[in-house]
Amino acid sequence: MTYTNRQWLLKQRPQGMVSLEDFNRVETDAPTANLAAGEVLIKNLYLSFDPAMRGWMDDEPSYLPPVEIGQPMRASAVGQVIASENTELPTGTLVQGMFGWQEYALAKPDDLIPAMALPEGTPPTMPLSIFGGTSLTAYFGLLSVGALAEGETVLVSGAAGATGSVVAQIAKIKNCKVIAIAGGKEKSDWLINDCKIDAVIDYKSENVEQRIGELCPNGVNVFFDNVGGDILQAGIEHMAEKGRIVLCGQISVYNDSTPTPGPNNLMKIVVNRVRMEGFIMIDFMDRIDEAMNDLVPWVMEGKISYREDIQEGFDNIPATFLRLFAGKNEGKQLLKLADPA
Amino acid sequence: MTYTNRQWLLKQRPQGMVSLEDFNRVETDAPTANLAAGEVLIKNLYLSFDPAMRGWMDDEPSYLPPVEIGQPMRASAVGQVIASENTELPTGTLVQGMFGWQEYALAKPDDLIPAMALPEGTPPTMPLSIFGGTSLTAYFGLLSVGALAEGETVLVSGAAGATGSVVAQIAKIKNCKVIAIAGGKEKSDWLINDCKIDAVIDYKSENVEQRIGELCPNGVNVFFDNVGGDILQAGIEHMAEKGRIVLCGQISVYNDSTPTPGPNNLMKIVVNRVRMEGFIMIDFMDRIDEAMNDLVPWVMEGKISYREDIQEGFDNIPATFLRLFAGKNEGKQLLKLADPA
Repeated sequence: MTYTNRQWLLKQRPQGMVSLEDFNRVETDAPTANLAAGEVLIKNLYLSFDPAMRGWMDDEPSYLPPVEIGQPMRASAVGQVIASENTELPTGTLVQGMFGWQEYALAKPDDLIPAMALPEGTPPTMPLSIFGGTSLTAYFGLLSVGALAEGETVLVSGAAGATGSVVAQIAKIKNCKVIAIAGGKEKSDWLINDCKIDAVIDYKSENVEQRIGELCPNGVNVFFDNVGGDILQAGIEHMAEKGRIVLCGQISVYNDSTPTPGPNNLMKIVVNRVRMEGFIMIDFMDRIDEAMNDLVPWVMEGKISYREDIQEGFDNIPATFLRLFAGKNEGKQLLKLADPA
Repeated sequence: MTYTNRQWLLKQRPQGMVSLEDFNRVETDAPTANLAAGEVLIKNLYLSFDPAMRGWMDDEPSYLPPVEIGQPMRASAVGQVIASENTELPTGTLVQGMFGWQEYALAKPDDLIPAMALPEGTPPTMPLSIFGGTSLTAYFGLLSVGALAEGETVLVSGAAGATGSVVAQIAKIKNCKVIAIAGGKEKSDWLINDCKIDAVIDYKSENVEQRIGELCPNGVNVFFDNVGGDILQAGIEHMAEKGRIVLCGQISVYNDSTPTPGPNNLMKIVVNRVRMEGFIMIDFMDRIDEAMNDLVPWVMEGKISYREDIQEGFDNIPATFLRLFAGKNEGKQLLKLADPA
């Protein structure tokens, strides 16, 4: 039996804002008869969409090689084994990995992210959302890179996003004062009502720099920044002495066709002895158990709220990706391709 | 007996580039008859000039309060006790402290920097130059903030300056490859011939970013930046994974009347997991002995070259300060007011 494998290939490198034109929809045959020893054929069920994927589209050296033109767009996914030459991964097994924007993927065991010990009945979306890379990024970025101490003042940008909302809530669990930056009333309400964050600054309607100053009169101890640009500059202005800025990403500049000038107030970093540090979650892969030992009970006990924004349908894949850069996603952006068999 | 005390007062806060017009020369009486118990009257011998003083002139919160309008400009100095109500500081004692731009200063013991254990016959300029704050800044910035390891690649901007040249030479003592950024042939020659630095990039005639890439094909492990602006951006572009950027100062922007945009490539800090950290030497005051235990033998054995640029005369004080921002000083900028009695 052969399967028709629909794929979205990277057609060209985006010039500025990524667009639907940068991808190319094709249909090929998915190989099934020729699995090598150890290999499995995976049917993708859910795709994950993350801002960092935008960086993989550029021809720039980075922590992962650029996606090649003509190849399926790289993306994290949960899928199900539908043909197997591996006795440890029988047909029906749910697996996670970088299976990309396609319906079917071939994989060897090394391509798979080891299954997490999750409670019975956990929905298959959770390893991509609240137990996925964005939450691990939040955990290690805040606690390890940010060296958060109990009772500190924490500022989080992109706070309604999958990473930011977990940062904000872990900081609350650690008895910190948490100021969130997010866009629009709906996101603000969710952060206040569900996530129990102390205050939200709406960057669409408020003067962010002024509001940080008002809300953090003693300065910010840890600023977890997902945004960059003007938001980063506003945060730098109010860092406390010995504060830490955790540079997680810069969604505000990913789609710039020409580089946007950076913060003009770096002298504040000198004067206030601030540490600004970038990090990538994959550097913490050997410590995932440590994070899950905390995250699983926090989520199961309701101490961390989360939302999944689940779009549907293969044809909607590129448009779903673009939602991230328009700030349209409400919670972790996913897309459902199929239910488990 | 009363002394006429000539002073240079801060007349106004500079708008953009500091100028001679920002200071006001006055003559007052220096108090001598009315010393309180413990106090001493100090005659200034040598003044120290540092780029950081420019920041003290602005009405901005910082690690030291702004110099007040109408007060003598704050400056580090070496002076000699000429009247004393303190038996531990008899007349003739050489002392160091923030005595300011004036001929005479009143001081209590708490105002004095504790005397360092220097070899007999050490010239009185040395506590302001090679054994002064700039060298301590170099030492702690490179080794403690920068966490330098033997054999790494080090990039230093402002490398012919008092701090930069010591950074570069300590890195050589630690068996590192050292690339210096400086302006002009005279400074380059000194760095190569006297300081034994591996290579110098002349920012006045070369493409700094391109040259860093050529000279550091495996990236920069520690970038000690005294300059900011375009030079900082060029360095960020070539940081190695897990590199450290030690933010010591930003002489390129101190005199900006409007803020200059910062580096447009901070995403490199994320991708390469770079740590950028500001610091102030005064945070390391309790570790000065540790630094001097290394610095004194290094200097006395000729492992660290240094230069003093000694201007003369009270009337030349403001103009001497301006030399720093024109890049005219060749070595540590000092001014001699008087010889020790």
